Amino acid sequence: MKIGTYKNIQPESFFNGMVLKRVLIGPKDNSPTFAMRLFTLKPGASTPYHSHDWEHEVFVVDGKIKVKSTDGETVVEKGAFIFVQPNEEHQFINIGDKLAHFICVVPNRGEQ
Amino acid sequence: MKIGTYKNIQPESFFNGMVLKRVLIGPKDNSPTFAMRLFTLKPGASTPYHSHDWEHEVFVVDGKIKVKSTDGETVVEKGAFIFVQPNEEHQFINIGDKLAHFICVVPNRGEQ
Repeated sequence: MKIGTYKNIQPESFFNGMVLKRVLIGPKDNSPTFAMRLFTLKPGASTPYHSHDWEHEVFVVDGKIKVKSTDGETVVEKGAFIFVQPNEEHQFINIGDKLAHFICVVPNRGEQ
Repeated sequence: MKIGTYKNIQPESFFNGMVLKRVLIGPKDNSPTFAMRLFTLKPGASTPYHSHDWEHEVFVVDGKIKVKSTDGETVVEKGAFIFVQPNEEHQFINIGDKLAHFICVVPNRGEQ
Protein backbone atom coordinates (compact mmCIF):
# COMPACT_ATOMS: atom_id res chain seq x y z
CA MET A 1 0.00 0.00 0.00
CA LYS A 2 1.23 3.45 -0.88
CA ILE A 3 -0.26 6.36 1.06
CA GLY A 4 0.70 9.97 0.59
CA THR A 5 -0.53 13.50 0.13
CA TYR A 6 -0.34 15.33 -3.16
CA LYS A 7 1.64 18.23 -1.68
CA ASN A 8 4.58 15.90 -1.07
CA ILE A 9 4.74 14.81 -4.71
CA GLN A 10 7.14 16.81 -6.85
CA PRO A 11 5.14 18.35 -9.69
CA GLU A 12 6.03 18.62 -13.34
CA SER A 13 5.59 22.21 -14.45
CA PHE A 14 4.13 23.34 -17.78
CA PHE A 15 3.49 26.73 -19.39
CA ASN A 16 5.81 28.67 -17.07
CA GLY A 17 4.36 27.06 -13.98
CA MET A 18 0.76 27.88 -14.84
CA VAL A 19 -0.08 24.15 -14.98
CA LEU A 20 1.30 21.57 -12.56
CA LYS A 21 0.96 17.81 -12.91
CA ARG A 22 1.57 15.34 -10.11
CA VAL A 23 1.53 11.61 -10.75
CA LEU A 24 0.02 10.30 -7.51
CA ILE A 25 -0.06 6.64 -8.57
CA GLY A 26 1.36 5.33 -11.83
CA PRO A 27 3.61 2.89 -13.66
CA LYS A 28 6.56 3.73 -11.36
CA ASP A 29 4.45 2.35 -8.52
CA ASN A 30 3.64 -0.74 -10.61
CA SER A 31 0.06 0.36 -11.15
CA PRO A 32 -1.42 -2.62 -13.01
CA THR A 33 -3.92 -0.82 -15.25
CA PHE A 34 -4.24 2.94 -14.89
CA ALA A 35 -2.56 6.03 -13.44
CA MET A 36 -3.99 8.73 -11.17
CA ARG A 37 -2.67 12.27 -11.65
CA LEU A 38 -3.59 15.57 -9.97
CA PHE A 39 -3.51 18.70 -12.10
CA THR A 40 -3.32 22.21 -10.66
CA LEU A 41 -4.21 25.21 -12.83
CA LYS A 42 -3.45 28.74 -11.76
CA PRO A 43 -6.18 31.34 -12.47
CA GLY A 44 -6.41 31.84 -16.23
CA ALA A 45 -4.34 28.76 -17.00
CA SER A 46 -5.47 26.13 -19.45
CA THR A 47 -4.46 22.74 -20.76
CA PRO A 48 -4.04 22.43 -24.55
CA TYR A 49 -7.06 21.84 -26.77
CA HIS A 50 -6.08 18.38 -27.97
CA SER A 51 -7.01 14.73 -28.30
CA HIS A 52 -5.38 11.31 -27.98
CA ASP A 53 -6.51 7.74 -28.34
CA TRP A 54 -6.96 7.05 -24.62
CA GLU A 55 -9.69 8.18 -22.24
CA HIS A 56 -9.68 10.59 -19.29
CA GLU A 57 -11.80 10.13 -16.20
CA VAL A 58 -11.73 13.44 -14.34
CA PHE A 59 -13.04 14.64 -10.96
CA VAL A 60 -12.93 18.30 -9.96
CA VAL A 61 -11.53 18.67 -6.46
CA ASP A 62 -11.49 22.49 -6.23
CA GLY A 63 -12.03 25.52 -8.40
CA LYS A 64 -14.10 26.69 -11.33
CA ILE A 65 -13.23 25.16 -14.68
CA LYS A 66 -14.52 25.67 -18.20
CA VAL A 67 -14.50 22.45 -20.21
CA LYS A 68 -14.27 22.85 -23.99
CA SER A 69 -14.99 20.11 -26.49
CA THR A 70 -16.71 19.72 -29.85
CA ASP A 71 -19.94 19.63 -27.79
CA GLY A 72 -19.32 23.25 -26.70
CA GLU A 73 -18.39 24.75 -23.35
CA THR A 74 -19.50 23.76 -19.86
CA VAL A 75 -18.53 25.36 -16.56
CA VAL A 76 -17.97 22.90 -13.72
CA GLU A 77 -16.96 23.17 -10.07
CA LYS A 78 -16.02 20.95 -7.14
CA GLY A 79 -17.88 17.66 -7.28
CA ALA A 80 -18.12 17.49 -11.06
CA PHE A 81 -16.88 14.58 -13.13
CA ILE A 82 -15.94 14.52 -16.82
CA PHE A 83 -15.55 11.46 -19.04
CA VAL A 84 -13.41 12.30 -22.07
CA GLN A 85 -13.66 9.42 -24.52
CA PRO A 86 -10.71 8.25 -26.65
CA ASN A 87 -9.97 10.64 -29.53
CA GLU A 88 -12.30 13.31 -28.17
CA GLU A 89 -10.98 16.88 -28.27
CA HIS A 90 -10.90 18.56 -24.86
CA GLN A 91 -9.50 21.50 -22.93
CA PHE A 92 -9.72 22.62 -19.30
CA ILE A 93 -9.50 26.33 -18.39
CA ASN A 94 -9.40 27.76 -14.87
CA ILE A 95 -11.90 30.62 -15.05
CA GLY A 96 -11.95 31.18 -11.28
CA ASP A 97 -9.77 33.44 -9.14
CA LYS A 98 -8.23 30.59 -7.11
CA LEU A 99 -6.21 27.48 -7.91
CA ALA A 100 -8.20 24.74 -9.63
CA HIS A 101 -7.40 21.11 -8.89
CA PHE A 102 -8.67 18.05 -10.70
CA ILE A 103 -7.94 14.36 -10.67
CA CYS A 104 -7.33 12.88 -14.14
CA VAL A 105 -7.07 9.10 -14.50
CA VAL A 106 -5.66 7.53 -17.67
CA PRO A 107 -4.72 4.01 -18.73
CA ASN A 108 -1.03 3.33 -18.08
CA ARG A 109 -0.12 3.88 -21.73
CA GLY A 110 -1.23 7.53 -21.29
CA GLU A 111 1.32 8.01 -18.50
CA GLN A 112 4.69 6.52 -19.39
CA MET B 1 -18.17 13.56 -23.42
CA LYS B 2 -20.16 12.96 -20.27
CA ILE B 3 -20.21 15.78 -17.71
CA GLY B 4 -22.11 15.68 -14.46
CA THR B 5 -21.99 16.31 -10.76
CA TYR B 6 -21.93 13.53 -8.22
CA LYS B 7 -25.02 14.79 -6.40
CA ASN B 8 -27.13 14.01 -9.47
CA ILE B 9 -26.02 10.38 -9.55
CA GLN B 10 -28.33 7.98 -7.72
CA PRO B 11 -26.25 6.26 -5.01
CA GLU B 12 -26.25 2.63 -4.01
CA SER B 13 -26.71 2.39 -0.26
CA PHE B 14 -24.89 -0.04 2.05
CA PHE B 15 -24.98 -0.72 5.80
CA ASN B 16 -28.31 1.05 6.40
CA GLY B 17 -27.25 4.11 4.44
CA MET B 18 -23.98 4.59 6.32
CA VAL B 19 -21.99 4.06 3.11
CA LEU B 20 -23.05 5.39 -0.29
CA LYS B 21 -21.48 4.48 -3.61
CA ARG B 22 -21.95 6.44 -6.81
CA VAL B 23 -20.57 5.17 -10.11
CA LEU B 24 -19.59 8.42 -11.82
CA ILE B 25 -18.06 6.80 -14.92
CA GLY B 26 -18.14 3.07 -15.61
CA PRO B 27 -18.97 0.21 -17.95
CA LYS B 28 -22.52 1.55 -18.52
CA ASP B 29 -20.85 4.63 -20.05
CA ASN B 30 -18.60 2.37 -22.15
CA SER B 31 -15.54 3.21 -20.09
CA PRO B 32 -12.78 1.39 -22.02
CA THR B 33 -10.52 0.43 -19.11
CA PHE B 34 -11.50 1.57 -15.61
CA ALA B 35 -14.38 2.95 -13.55
CA MET B 36 -14.49 6.01 -11.29
CA ARG B 37 -16.70 5.79 -8.20
CA LEU B 38 -17.33 8.25 -5.36
CA PHE B 39 -17.87 6.81 -1.88
CA THR B 40 -19.51 8.74 0.94
CA LEU B 41 -19.11 7.55 4.53
CA LYS B 42 -21.19 8.95 7.36
CA PRO B 43 -19.34 9.64 10.63
CA GLY B 44 -18.34 6.31 12.17
CA ALA B 45 -19.07 4.36 9.00
CA SER B 46 -16.58 1.96 7.48
CA THR B 47 -16.12 -0.19 4.43
CA PRO B 48 -15.46 -3.91 5.06
CA TYR B 49 -11.95 -5.12 5.86
CA HIS B 50 -11.45 -7.20 2.72
CA SER B 51 -9.36 -7.88 -0.35
CA HIS B 52 -9.86 -8.73 -4.03
CA ASP B 53 -7.58 -9.34 -6.98
CA TRP B 54 -7.89 -5.86 -8.50
CA GLU B 55 -6.36 -2.58 -7.41
CA HIS B 56 -7.85 0.60 -5.96
CA GLU B 57 -6.53 4.07 -6.69
CA VAL B 58 -8.12 6.38 -4.13
CA PHE B 59 -8.15 10.15 -3.61
CA VAL B 60 -9.65 11.72 -0.49
CA VAL B 61 -11.93 14.61 -1.43
CA ASP B 62 -13.24 15.50 2.05
CA GLY B 63 -13.14 14.22 5.59
CA LYS B 64 -10.89 12.35 7.98
CA ILE B 65 -10.38 8.67 7.25
CA LYS B 66 -8.48 5.90 8.98
CA VAL B 67 -6.98 3.44 6.53
CA LYS B 68 -6.38 -0.07 7.86
CA SER B 69 -4.21 -2.67 6.16
CA THR B 70 -1.68 -5.32 7.12
CA ASP B 71 0.78 -2.38 7.28
CA GLY B 72 -1.21 -0.93 10.21
CA GLU B 73 -3.36 2.18 10.47
CA THR B 74 -2.90 5.59 8.89
CA VAL B 75 -5.12 8.65 9.25
CA VAL B 76 -5.57 10.67 6.07
CA GLU B 77 -7.47 13.80 5.09
CA LYS B 78 -8.37 15.82 1.99
CA GLY B 79 -5.59 15.67 -0.57
CA ALA B 80 -4.38 12.19 0.36
CA PHE B 81 -4.06 9.34 -2.11
CA ILE B 82 -3.98 5.60 -1.42
CA PHE B 83 -2.82 2.86 -3.74
CA VAL B 84 -4.29 -0.50 -2.69
CA GLN B 85 -2.55 -3.22 -4.65
CA PRO B 86 -4.33 -6.35 -5.90
CA ASN B 87 -5.05 -8.83 -3.08
CA GLU B 88 -4.10 -6.32 -0.40
CA GLU B 89 -6.42 -6.18 2.62
CA HIS B 90 -7.88 -2.75 3.25
CA GLN B 91 -10.57 -0.84 5.13
CA PHE B 92 -11.63 2.81 5.24
CA ILE B 93 -13.24 4.26 8.39
CA ASN B 94 -14.66 7.77 8.75
CA ILE B 95 -13.23 8.92 12.08
CA GLY B 96 -14.30 12.56 11.62
CA ASP B 97 -17.54 14.27 12.59
CA LYS B 98 -18.57 15.14 9.02
CA LEU B 99 -19.22 13.18 5.84
CA ALA B 100 -16.11 11.71 4.24
CA HIS B 101 -15.87 11.48 0.47
CA PHE B 102 -13.29 9.63 -1.58
CA ILE B 103 -12.80 8.76 -5.21
CA CYS B 104 -12.02 5.08 -5.81
CA VAL B 105 -10.96 3.96 -9.28
CA VAL B 106 -10.97 0.27 -10.26
CA PRO B 107 -10.44 -1.66 -13.47
CA ASN B 108 -13.77 -2.34 -15.20
CA ARG B 109 -13.86 -5.93 -13.92
CA GLY B 110 -14.10 -4.49 -10.37
CA GLU B 111 -17.29 -2.62 -11.31
CA GLN B 112 -19.71 -4.81 -13.29
